[in-house]
Amino acid sequence: MAPHVHVSLLGCGTVGGGVLRLLRDNATYLASRVGAEIVIDKILVRDLGKERGGGCDPTWLTTDPAAVFDGRADIIVEVMGGEEPARAHIERALRGGRSVVTANKLLLAKHGPTLIDLAHEHGVDLAFEASVGGGIPVIRTLREALSSDWIESLTGIVNGTCNYVLTRMRDEELGLDEALRAAQALGYAEAEPSLDVDGHDAAQKLVVLAMVAFGARVDADRVPTTGIRGLDQRDHRMARRFGCSIKHLAVGRDHGDAIELRVHPALVPSTGVLANVGGVLNAISVHGRALGPCLLSGRGAGDLPTAVSVVADLVDVARARREGAAGLTTRGLQLEARPLLDLDAARSRFYLRFFVADRPGVLAAIAGALGDEGVSIEQMVQESGSGREESPVDIVMMTHEATFGGVARALRRIDALPFVASPTRSLPVVP
Amino acid sequence: MAPHVHVSLLGCGTVGGGVLRLLRDNATYLASRVGAEIVIDKILVRDLGKERGGGCDPTWLTTDPAAVFDGRADIIVEVMGGEEPARAHIERALRGGRSVVTANKLLLAKHGPTLIDLAHEHGVDLAFEASVGGGIPVIRTLREALSSDWIESLTGIVNGTCNYVLTRMRDEELGLDEALRAAQALGYAEAEPSLDVDGHDAAQKLVVLAMVAFGARVDADRVPTTGIRGLDQRDHRMARRFGCSIKHLAVGRDHGDAIELRVHPALVPSTGVLANVGGVLNAISVHGRALGPCLLSGRGAGDLPTAVSVVADLVDVARARREGAAGLTTRGLQLEARPLLDLDAARSRFYLRFFVADRPGVLAAIAGALGDEGVSIEQMVQESGSGREESPVDIVMMTHEATFGGVARALRRIDALPFVASPTRSLPVVP
Repeated sequence: MAPHVHVSLLGCGTVGGGVLRLLRDNATYLASRVGAEIVIDKILVRDLGKERGGGCDPTWLTTDPAAVFDGRADIIVEVMGGEEPARAHIERALRGGRSVVTANKLLLAKHGPTLIDLAHEHGVDLAFEASVGGGIPVIRTLREALSSDWIESLTGIVNGTCNYVLTRMRDEELGLDEALRAAQALGYAEAEPSLDVDGHDAAQKLVVLAMVAFGARVDADRVPTTGIRGLDQRDHRMARRFGCSIKHLAVGRDHGDAIELRVHPALVPSTGVLANVGGVLNAISVHGRALGPCLLSGRGAGDLPTAVSVVADLVDVARARREGAAGLTTRGLQLEARPLLDLDAARSRFYLRFFVADRPGVLAAIAGALGDEGVSIEQMVQESGSGREESPVDIVMMTHEATFGGVARALRRIDALPFVASPTRSLPVVP
Repeated sequence: MAPHVHVSLLGCGTVGGGVLRLLRDNATYLASRVGAEIVIDKILVRDLGKERGGGCDPTWLTTDPAAVFDGRADIIVEVMGGEEPARAHIERALRGGRSVVTANKLLLAKHGPTLIDLAHEHGVDLAFEASVGGGIPVIRTLREALSSDWIESLTGIVNGTCNYVLTRMRDEELGLDEALRAAQALGYAEAEPSLDVDGHDAAQKLVVLAMVAFGARVDADRVPTTGIRGLDQRDHRMARRFGCSIKHLAVGRDHGDAIELRVHPALVPSTGVLANVGGVLNAISVHGRALGPCLLSGRGAGDLPTAVSVVADLVDVARARREGAAGLTTRGLQLEARPLLDLDAARSRFYLRFFVADRPGVLAAIAGALGDEGVSIEQMVQESGSGREESPVDIVMMTHEATFGGVARALRRIDALPFVASPTRSLPVVP
């Protein structure tokens, strides 16, 4: 009898359907890589009656978790998303000696370290390539390809919605609301888009990346996070004038004694690769001590790209089980609660945009407050006002490198001044 | 007694030294990933007296191949380069049941299929991540991450010398000779640079990529190959005028019944990622049917980036041996002699630059010859001549999509016309 590896799915939405399709279409090749045929045992769904494509056999479907956990599955693929009951199911699978493949970034960001410990304890695998960057093999690259290197930093465009909105704004001179509506119309943004546009999705992904790149156990709530709301067309024009584009970034840096994590919109040089990762594409740039810079880019979401990553994990995990070598995907991954660098101490150049009344003495007051905090100005653009003192004008500056803390303190003072019409916009510059 | 995996090196130049350094600096982490300590057995060198850094223990060194093959090594790492004796040593290692890690693209391009068959036959590994793209994990990505996908095409900037020369020409308006001398001064080009600048190095790497991406067994000599000689500053300026940059590319496409492989300089859109991969960086863009586009970029050469890839392979191969699962790296890789698409039948847009006397009727003759071969013109730029009929002028065109064969036939006719001062320059446009 030919050997088999039995797999059950939790959830069968678009990603699950993609997984079934890839398993069916590539069955022979995958079997040769695993050394055994991959056979579906059960698929846990909420609605048995729903139409499902991708060669889904109705006899696989069940609404009863017990049918999955009493079944023959060696490996559980979790593609249901959300926190519960996904977490409980994964925990149950790991405790039962089953390996797990998941695409669930929320769960990884919240419970990754606990689940990884559990996988270690039970000698099974927990693979999660699909949780960050869709089809981009970033977890695998950090874990395997760079296994002999020390990752100094990573910079990622990890949220396709933000990148799509910012790209439309830049290239077609749309306003943010207009670009966001376009994204919603195309299904690139949710009706309630705050998870994406406020940066929380990117923060979760950064936490997952930090686990693999820096061995760090971090709470996503502790990552300083800013979204893209408030940016307007003039920010894009000014960025271009400084030779830059605005991108929403997740930034991680290993300082040895602490790690620095932050999520925010930033100016990046227009001639760099990140500026040219457009639309819904994602990219992760990694800097290794030995390797130097390395960039991975591709579709960060979507059913088929994500399914490609799930199946790649499934092949690894299935092969490891066949060969009695389970535990492969988290082997050597020792997570520790590493201290987070206080963002105030982190350094960057900054784009600052002041909204001020067009009055004498304004610039001197701004420059004075910046100077007091050690923030020096590299370039400044002040466009001519309307001639009426009351109508606010913009002053835009690029600073030399300064601390986040120094800039924040200067801006608190400046924003309290009477001639300031609205809070200063501040974007770090990421080289 | 703690378990060990014994490794011997063939060669100990800059890459070998980098490997020793990474193995020493990351010994604990690597041992945890392998499940055994990696121990150096022998290192084959030509000169025992040469100074070697990176923690090289002199007792490892030998000039006698027999000392390596009679030794305890489970795995042989070949970093000596060149065709012979590297080929003979690798064959001997595989036949002796040892796994091999190599960084040797020349050898892979010439003997890859034979050596892979030999590895299959003896149930051992032959890993060659470092042979293409230095530290960029492209082989691993094609083999593992995209194992459930069908690779439709790949486009690579795989020669750092060409990319450096073209980048300097574009950004600093240097001539080719001047840029090449700068590359030589920095050690980015050989004193005899033809392997790089004539495209042969890129063709070898494309053959290695085609093995993994398309399962194709191809002779590098059969890949239509053009280098970067002859390009001048005006080509870069005209490319910019068309919104493009000039890059030296390796292009592969799977047409199902045949594969298309070609190496040449090409115009790529300035706003795309490839145009912004500058200097000595390499990049490989892969298009998977399910995944869509995916780009990997980083340092394509250099001792440490290449060593990172060698050590990543070494970890995989060592772990596989520990677990009795050798054969991992080439598993599922069934190479066949796939037919190459006749380049005449391949399609592309083209940049054409004609060097002609400034006479009435010239444009009509050119347009007529192109039209006869089904090549239609999308844009044309003719700069005003000197007023003297004898001094040649440039006419630059962008065509609509046409076949390579149609363009070649039209150019043969045009270049034979009396008013043509020198052969027409023709560069495909790669979207």
